[in-house]
Amino acid sequence: MAKLDFASARAEFRAGTLTPRKFLEACIRQIEKREPTVRAFVTLDLDGARKAADASDKRWKSKKPLSSIDGLPIAIKDIIETVDMPTEFGSPIFKGWNGGRDSACAFALRRAGAVIVGKAVTTEFAGAPPGPTTNPHDPKRTPGGSSSGSAAAVAAGMVPVAIGTQVGGSVLRPASFCGIVGFKPTFGALNRGGIGDQFSQNCIGTLSHTLEDAWAVAHEIAARVGGDPGFLPFAGGAEPAAPRRPDVLAVLETDGWAVADADAKKALAAFLKKLERAGVTLIDRKGSRRVAQLEDAIAGASDLSLGINDWEKIWPFADLELREGSRLSEGLRKAVLKGRDNMTVDDYVALLKKRDYARDVLMGLAGDVDACITLGSAGPAPLGIGSTGNAVFNMPASMLRNPALSLPLLKVDGLPLGLQLLGYPNCERALSGVAAWVSEFGKKR
Amino acid sequence: MAKLDFASARAEFRAGTLTPRKFLEACIRQIEKREPTVRAFVTLDLDGARKAADASDKRWKSKKPLSSIDGLPIAIKDIIETVDMPTEFGSPIFKGWNGGRDSACAFALRRAGAVIVGKAVTTEFAGAPPGPTTNPHDPKRTPGGSSSGSAAAVAAGMVPVAIGTQVGGSVLRPASFCGIVGFKPTFGALNRGGIGDQFSQNCIGTLSHTLEDAWAVAHEIAARVGGDPGFLPFAGGAEPAAPRRPDVLAVLETDGWAVADADAKKALAAFLKKLERAGVTLIDRKGSRRVAQLEDAIAGASDLSLGINDWEKIWPFADLELREGSRLSEGLRKAVLKGRDNMTVDDYVALLKKRDYARDVLMGLAGDVDACITLGSAGPAPLGIGSTGNAVFNMPASMLRNPALSLPLLKVDGLPLGLQLLGYPNCERALSGVAAWVSEFGKKR
Repeated sequence: MAKLDFASARAEFRAGTLTPRKFLEACIRQIEKREPTVRAFVTLDLDGARKAADASDKRWKSKKPLSSIDGLPIAIKDIIETVDMPTEFGSPIFKGWNGGRDSACAFALRRAGAVIVGKAVTTEFAGAPPGPTTNPHDPKRTPGGSSSGSAAAVAAGMVPVAIGTQVGGSVLRPASFCGIVGFKPTFGALNRGGIGDQFSQNCIGTLSHTLEDAWAVAHEIAARVGGDPGFLPFAGGAEPAAPRRPDVLAVLETDGWAVADADAKKALAAFLKKLERAGVTLIDRKGSRRVAQLEDAIAGASDLSLGINDWEKIWPFADLELREGSRLSEGLRKAVLKGRDNMTVDDYVALLKKRDYARDVLMGLAGDVDACITLGSAGPAPLGIGSTGNAVFNMPASMLRNPALSLPLLKVDGLPLGLQLLGYPNCERALSGVAAWVSEFGKKR
Repeated sequence: MAKLDFASARAEFRAGTLTPRKFLEACIRQIEKREPTVRAFVTLDLDGARKAADASDKRWKSKKPLSSIDGLPIAIKDIIETVDMPTEFGSPIFKGWNGGRDSACAFALRRAGAVIVGKAVTTEFAGAPPGPTTNPHDPKRTPGGSSSGSAAAVAAGMVPVAIGTQVGGSVLRPASFCGIVGFKPTFGALNRGGIGDQFSQNCIGTLSHTLEDAWAVAHEIAARVGGDPGFLPFAGGAEPAAPRRPDVLAVLETDGWAVADADAKKALAAFLKKLERAGVTLIDRKGSRRVAQLEDAIAGASDLSLGINDWEKIWPFADLELREGSRLSEGLRKAVLKGRDNMTVDDYVALLKKRDYARDVLMGLAGDVDACITLGSAGPAPLGIGSTGNAVFNMPASMLRNPALSLPLLKVDGLPLGLQLLGYPNCERALSGVAAWVSEFGKKR
């Protein structure tokens, strides 16, 4: 089995005890072993990957790696354009389609020396209807979505890192279900050029086994292509901050509390109790008016996000619907026509203002609360692959457009369950220090 | 010759004394007459336009127009995707290219019943190297750019309205040179989906003969596809506000003062004197510390805008450069490689912060200053079509990302020269009232 993290492989590249090509071959062996069941990839380009790895070998040998992720085998969600592989958006309409260019993040990753192994399965246009991917922990369960293949490829050890995107819960939810680290930075922090949708909650995120790998990848992308034009690029550093015990965490219930599995709540409660014993002060809606205000502001986050999304789907999907309506899923078609026919631009503006308000309320905690904490999902991955599960716990961070992490620190019935940490917009470094400490603490337990 | 404005044609459609098809045919006659010299179009689709006009005829006849711009013949800058015509971006690399979809604004315009007549000439990727378009007032002069064809088609009476885009001076400058109304709304106010570049200063604007037409088109686009995802859509109303005499205008010199033609300065001074006699209070950098602060904040707007642009050009142009470098202009190639090799993400962030600061300073005037006023360009259209002229007077509004208008109210040696008004972000309605009054006042002089 391939190493699960890249940082340790990089150390070996540097020491000369491992090469990117050998590392890639271990990944390929794992792909050969697991892919028939996991089905994480739409397209694999092993020849291209081998060539890229060989080039990386030479750079490491001459001690001139292009970056801290030179030689990193990586999978890219198939919603993101790559010049050498089709981008199919999980839709039959785009079967074999190639826009003839690299997206900003693919361009940056290549220039940083990363080895693009393949395109990972996405739900239809990163929406609801799932692909064939199964959960590496149990093939009868969903890996989550929409970054289904990205999360599954990482969880199955096929690649150390994959790129996903999230509008609602598409990075954090599969990370929680697959037992890996999901990182969604602040909105705008990683350049979305060449990604199928430009929704106002969509952002690029990473799936990985470690915080270190997530930070390295985000850092190297931002260093080369920045964030979305006009937005502050990821500035969380080339590696996470040193572990720092949080003084105060705000425990959020979110709308998810009403539907979360009892066992998931128990697992969280046990973790929180241990945090308190370790000296962390926990505040929640009962004891803090500011937390209560935030809970109120994010109540209805799913409906709000879907409403914003319905409007933003008018273009390009209503245009696509004119020509290819019958090849869109019923759900997508309905959402698009709902935006087009049943929403006005004033409805949309009202939702934007509500969203802005929630972010302002979040900022009311910034002075003395280190981060917010909640579940990564309403429970472990549910049975069946016909749905990617409930994203209710992930909608707040999407709506708030703040950075969030799902950390693989909880278990229910032997299945992974994420612990979610939410930080403040553009304060990724502070979040990483808290996350590093909570991760170490969680593993020691 | 076709009518120059659409609002009066619309009144005739309603009265039954004119039809969209007849209106279009008048436009086509004007195209036949002027296009061989003006060269405003890359692609014309007269068959498609006639079909669309016939369909509009039927709607007007049955008193069911789709919108206030049903039957409007319009030209679209060839940087904006149209499903039925190629989009060539002014670059040989994209000769005949068709992305197979309508951009958001083309989609909206069609759904509003507008008649897309053709694709208007753009400079290379809306940057510097010009196309073949000449100025309708004098074929030896540039029409300005980068929305060269859009402005020239309108000024020559070929279409009442055209869509352009502006990153630096690409709507306001050609409007000034061509003697028409150029309108650049607040950044983000009109949906840029399906436009070649997504630079953080790029926005869709209109070229027209009247404020009414500019407002109607912006309104109908925003009503159907809104603004850029997450941004406040244009909300200036379906028509401009009633004329309102401004109490106070801030006269800006900008960096342009140092290079403006003496006659252009004289023309502005004469206009300002008349405004003062009409009771408008004028303040400037000498008498107002806040205006001086704004002048300081926008000093270097061109360099700042170009710097931001160099970074934002890395994607997609550095990616394109890898494959098609020899077919990019030398200037574009240099800018792209400058961004890629000589800028860091921190350089970019520093420029963004400077830009934000300037907008904050502008907002310091909002309490008691109705608008800012300056020249639309450093002089009338210069001789030669090898350059699209100096955009120095337009860079401030691009950098401030606020709404701005170039109004055809000045003349120098019989050539048109724009008077520029700058408003506050998302306050298009207030700007329109001032602009309507200034326009009426200017025409009465």
